[in-house]
Amino acid sequence: MSTVQTAPRWLSIDQQKVWRSYLLGSARLAERLDADLREFGLDLGEYEILVTLSEAPDRRVRMSELAEAVHQSRSRLTHTVTRMENASLVQRSSCPTDRRGVWAHLTDTGMELLETAAPTHVEGVRRHFVEAMSEEDYAAVGRAFAAVVCATGR
Amino acid sequence: MSTVQTAPRWLSIDQQKVWRSYLLGSARLAERLDADLREFGLDLGEYEILVTLSEAPDRRVRMSELAEAVHQSRSRLTHTVTRMENASLVQRSSCPTDRRGVWAHLTDTGMELLETAAPTHVEGVRRHFVEAMSEEDYAAVGRAFAAVVCATGR
Repeated sequence: MSTVQTAPRWLSIDQQKVWRSYLLGSARLAERLDADLREFGLDLGEYEILVTLSEAPDRRVRMSELAEAVHQSRSRLTHTVTRMENASLVQRSSCPTDRRGVWAHLTDTGMELLETAAPTHVEGVRRHFVEAMSEEDYAAVGRAFAAVVCATGR
Repeated sequence: MSTVQTAPRWLSIDQQKVWRSYLLGSARLAERLDADLREFGLDLGEYEILVTLSEAPDRRVRMSELAEAVHQSRSRLTHTVTRMENASLVQRSSCPTDRRGVWAHLTDTGMELLETAAPTHVEGVRRHFVEAMSEEDYAAVGRAFAAVVCATGR
């Protein structure tokens, strides 16, 4: 074997266990939340778009900022927003005096759907995530993923 | 407002903060790990398939069990495995004396690619996840997502 590269630092058995719990748990959680939202004709990515727009001034956000806020690639976001525009949940517009691109607006229909879906969604987040674990572990998960955000931003 | 349904139990500000850190952190982590694997022509879902097959007796697993092990739907798995079969990484076969379905086998090419990609992947998991947080928080994340697996299985 080549000795030029450092030997891989494999995970210990315990470290692997945690990693695999995370992979399985996060996949199952996403499936459950998607299934909850399906009855409203939404998936988790679309729901996050509705939330982000609903909280913005004038309920509108530049597409470039929206992509970052909902952590989707520009191409995936464009695809999703087109679908949502066809369902009258959002509208896109570009302003002639603003050359910084296209805005997405939340429509009244979109706001109504968000308000209808939110209780079911939040109940799912509580049942399958927040209340599945102890308060201490929940706080630790918050610290842990804030640290992941920093580590992946480097 | 109707009083037939119980009022939604919205998340507190602190609970929301944790939830959003998780959403953002897990999305960024997946992006990073996918980007790492792209240089080997793999994504995270395909990598998990290679790992699962490599650890199985005779390096083969029934498609139905593989779907569960890598937490993919049967339709998504079929799609992914077809792509991997075209790249000679896995092979499918059905045994005439076993009516319980189709098996996926890891090929030598698949095993070699896994061995080539593993050091980079593990380094990414360490840098962006394991070592991003304290050991205590890492252990808490393990407990938390094991609890999520239980909660979502109900």
